Amino acid sequence: MLEELKNQVLEANLRLVEYGLVLFTWGNVSGIDREKGLVVIKPSGVDYSVLKAQDLSVLDLEGNLIEGLKPSSDTPTHLELYRRFPEIGGVAHTHSTCAVAFAQAAKGIKPYGTTHADFAFGEIPCTRDLTQAEINGEYELNTGKVIAERFETGGIDYNAVPAVLVHSHGPFTWGKDCYDAAKNSAILEEVAVMALMSETLGASEASKAIQSKHYFRKHGANAYYGQG
Amino acid sequence: MLEELKNQVLEANLRLVEYGLVLFTWGNVSGIDREKGLVVIKPSGVDYSVLKAQDLSVLDLEGNLIEGLKPSSDTPTHLELYRRFPEIGGVAHTHSTCAVAFAQAAKGIKPYGTTHADFAFGEIPCTRDLTQAEINGEYELNTGKVIAERFETGGIDYNAVPAVLVHSHGPFTWGKDCYDAAKNSAILEEVAVMALMSETLGASEASKAIQSKHYFRKHGANAYYGQG
Amino acid sequence: MLEELKNQVLEANLRLVEYGLVLFTWGNVSGIDREKGLVVIKPSGVDYSVLKAQDLSVLDLEGNLIEGLKPSSDTPTHLELYRRFPEIGGVAHTHSTCAVAFAQAAKGIKPYGTTHADFAFGEIPCTRDLTQAEINGEYELNTGKVIAERFETGGIDYNAVPAVLVHSHGPFTWGKDCYDAAKNSAILEEVAVMALMSETLGASEASKAIQSKHYFRKHGANAYYGQG
Amino acid sequence: MLEELKNQVLEANLRLVEYGLVLFTWGNVSGIDREKGLVVIKPSGVDYSVLKAQDLSVLDLEGNLIEGLKPSSDTPTHLELYRRFPEIGGVAHTHSTCAVAFAQAAKGIKPYGTTHADFAFGEIPCTRDLTQAEINGEYELNTGKVIAERFETGGIDYNAVPAVLVHSHGPFTWGKDCYDAAKNSAILEEVAVMALMSETLGASEASKAIQSKHYFRKHGANAYYGQG
Repeated sequence: MLEELKNQVLEANLRLVEYGLVLFTWGNVSGIDREKGLVVIKPSGVDYSVLKAQDLSVLDLEGNLIEGLKPSSDTPTHLELYRRFPEIGGVAHTHSTCAVAFAQAAKGIKPYGTTHADFAFGEIPCTRDLTQAEINGEYELNTGKVIAERFETGGIDYNAVPAVLVHSHGPFTWGKDCYDAAKNSAILEEVAVMALMSETLGASEASKAIQSKHYFRKHGANAYYGQG
Repeated sequence: MLEELKNQVLEANLRLVEYGLVLFTWGNVSGIDREKGLVVIKPSGVDYSVLKAQDLSVLDLEGNLIEGLKPSSDTPTHLELYRRFPEIGGVAHTHSTCAVAFAQAAKGIKPYGTTHADFAFGEIPCTRDLTQAEINGEYELNTGKVIAERFETGGIDYNAVPAVLVHSHGPFTWGKDCYDAAKNSAILEEVAVMALMSETLGASEASKAIQSKHYFRKHGANAYYGQG
Repeated sequence: MLEELKNQVLEANLRLVEYGLVLFTWGNVSGIDREKGLVVIKPSGVDYSVLKAQDLSVLDLEGNLIEGLKPSSDTPTHLELYRRFPEIGGVAHTHSTCAVAFAQAAKGIKPYGTTHADFAFGEIPCTRDLTQAEINGEYELNTGKVIAERFETGGIDYNAVPAVLVHSHGPFTWGKDCYDAAKNSAILEEVAVMALMSETLGASEASKAIQSKHYFRKHGANAYYGQG
Repeated sequence: MLEELKNQVLEANLRLVEYGLVLFTWGNVSGIDREKGLVVIKPSGVDYSVLKAQDLSVLDLEGNLIEGLKPSSDTPTHLELYRRFPEIGGVAHTHSTCAVAFAQAAKGIKPYGTTHADFAFGEIPCTRDLTQAEINGEYELNTGKVIAERFETGGIDYNAVPAVLVHSHGPFTWGKDCYDAAKNSAILEEVAVMALMSETLGASEASKAIQSKHYFRKHGANAYYGQG
C-alpha cells in the first residue's frame, strides 16, 4: 500500500544525505496521505545506504503501526505535527550542525536578510525546555506538543515559518510534501550558518519591509518568483 | 538568436554551481551583447540541472522580453547595472554564505591583504538600506539604483571594484563577460571568508602601497601577471 | 593469523579517511582479540592508500611485536587502554580538527544537547598535561595512563563516555570493536564542532533529564532506538 | 632538460589542487636541481587543468629564464629562498584560507599542540610589513629577503620551521623537495585552522617538553615515527 508515497519518502530521506545534513542514521523524513490518514516514515536506526521503500513504516495518526519496520523513535513528534499543523504534507528532522548549535544555545534564528525571508517570514523560533515530567513521560510526543505550543502561544503561522528549533536538541522542518520538508532542512542549515556569521559581524534584523518583500515575492497569491 | 552568448551564459550559470556558490536555484548570471543591446539571463526559479540554452531569457535594456522563459526576478537589477556601468559585459548574483553574512551585517569587506588586492582595489562596499518606498516600488530596479549610487557617491570605480554587497541581501559581481562575473563571485566569497577570519584575529587593512602593488601587478597597462 | 581481525582493522582505518578525519597518515585504529590477548594496529607512517591487511602489526598486550610491520608510535597508548578498559574491543586516534582544538585549549566538551547525549553520558573529559618526566619517559605509555587516571579519578564510566581529549594533543575514542571506535571518532568531531558553535552562541549544558533520556534511549537495557 | 624534475614539479603543483589549497591559479610550487643550479617553477597565470610539464619554467638562480613559459610572478621570492636556505629542495606558495587570515592579521601561528609540533618546532613566524620602498622596488625579491631576515634575526632554523606567513599576503612553505613543500602547505593550513579554533577556545601554547617530544619523534637522528 501507499507505494507512491513510500517511494517519495525514501527519496526524500536520501536527499538529506545528498544535502550533507546527516551523519550515519541521524535524521528522518515522513510524508502523509491526508485522505487515508496514514503516515510513511523512515524506520529506526537503519542506514541510508540499505534503506528500501518496502522497509518504510506506515502508521495511522494515532501511532498504530500498519506496515513495515519499527518506525523512527521520533515518530510521535512527526504525528503530533501532522495533527496540529493540518496543512502540512511532510516533516523532516535532522541534526544538521549549525541549526543544532542554535537549538543547543536555546536561541531562535533571527531574520537577518533576504535569504531567510525567501524561506520564512520572521524568526525561526526555539521551543522552551521540556520539563522533567515531559521528558520522563511521553518524550517524543511532548516534543511535538511544545513545538505546536510555541507556534500557538507565539502567534506564529506554521505555513509561513516551516521550521523550528527544539531546545537542546535540533531542527524539525515541514512543507507541502516530504520533498519540501527535506529541502527546508537544507535551507534552514544554510540560513543558520549565515546567521551565526552575521551575529559575529554584528548584524541587526532586516527591516520588516524587505522581509515582506522577499517573503511575498516567493510565497502566496502575489508571488512572482519562478515560472508560475 | 544570440546562440553563442546563450551558451556562454548557460555555462557561466553552471559554474556558480561548480564553484559551490549556490543552493537550489539561488543565483543567476547574465551576459550582454552591447552591439545589439540585448541581455541574456537565467530564467526564474529553474533548476540548474535542467537548464538549457534555449530556455534562457533574452531582453532588451528596457526590460522587454524578446525570447525565452520568464527571466530571473532579479533581472531589473542586472539591467540597471548594464545601463549604469557601460563597460561591463556580465553580471552575477549569488547568496554565497559569507558574502551574505557581510551584507546582512551591512559591512563592507575591507582590504586586509593581497588576495583582496589581486581582485579589487579597495573595500568591497555595502549599499545603504533601501527605503520602504523603494522596496514597495520597483524593488529590483531600485536595488540596481542603490548599487550605482553607492559607487557614484563613494567615488568608486566599478572597473576596479567588480563587486558589491546589497544591504540585508547579498552580493552582485560583474566583469568583462559572464564568465568573469561568475568567477568574481567565487573570488568574493573566498575573500569574504578570509576577511571574517582576519577580523576574528584582529587584522587591520593592508597598506595602500601593497594594495596598489598587487592590484596593478594583475590589472591595467603595467600588469605583469600571466602569460600576457 | 587473525586474518578476520586484520581485515576489520584495515577497513576501520580506511573509514577514518572516508569520514574525513585524517590528513596524510595522521590517525590509527586498532582492534583486540580478547581471547588470544592480541592487538592488531596500523603500522607507523604508512599511507592509507597503500595499506594492506598483511602489513598490519600484531602485538601482545605487553607490546611484543608478533607479526607485521613496525606498529604505530601510539601503540603503547592503545595497549594501556586495552589493559585499563577491559570491556573495549577497539581504539581509534585521530587529529580531527575541532576535537584537537578543544584538546589544545585543554577543555572538555560539555554536553550541550542531545547529539552529544546520544553518544556519551556527560562531558568528554580532557586529561591533565603530562609532566616533563612523563613526557621524557615512556611518553606514549604515560599518555594511556593519564587517560585511565582521568576516568578513574573523575569517576567516569569508560563505557558511557567512549572518548577523551589528550591535553595539547587530540582525541582517542574506543568502542565494542574497531568499527565502533572509528565511528566514535567521527561522532566526536561532529559533537566538537557543534559545541564550539554553541559556545559562540552562549549555550549552557543540557539538563540532566534530557541527557539521560537520550543516552538511555540509545544505550543499555531499556534502549528503544533501532530495530532491536 | 630536467624532465624528471619537471614531472615532479608538475605533480607537486597538481597536489596543491588535490589538497584543496588553491582557487583558480592562486599558488605555485618549484623545485631545484642543486647540482645544476636550476629551478623549475609553475608558469604565471596558467590554469592547473591545462598545465603541462614542458610548459614549466626553468631558471638559473640569478633568475635568467632558460626554458619554458614566463615564470610565476612570485619566482624571485622562490629564488631568494633557495639562495638563503641552502638545504631546501622545494618551495610552495598558496593563498590557503586560514593561513592567509593569520598573515592578514600579521600574527604568527603559535604552537598550541602536537599537530603543530609534529610539523614545526616553534611558532610559524609572520614577517614584518615591507616598506613602501621595498614594495615599489623589487617587490617579489624583497619578499624573499624579509622572509630570510625574519628567520635570521629571530634565530629560527628554517629546517625546523618549514613555513612562514608573509605580512598582509600569505604562506610560503618549503621542504627537502617539491612534494614536501606542497605537503607542508597542506599541513600549515590545517594547523592554522586548529590554531584559530584553539584561540577562540582560549588555548595557551603547548609546553616546550611536549613540543620537543613530538618534533623529535618525527624529525632528526632519534626519530622513531614511520618505518625508518
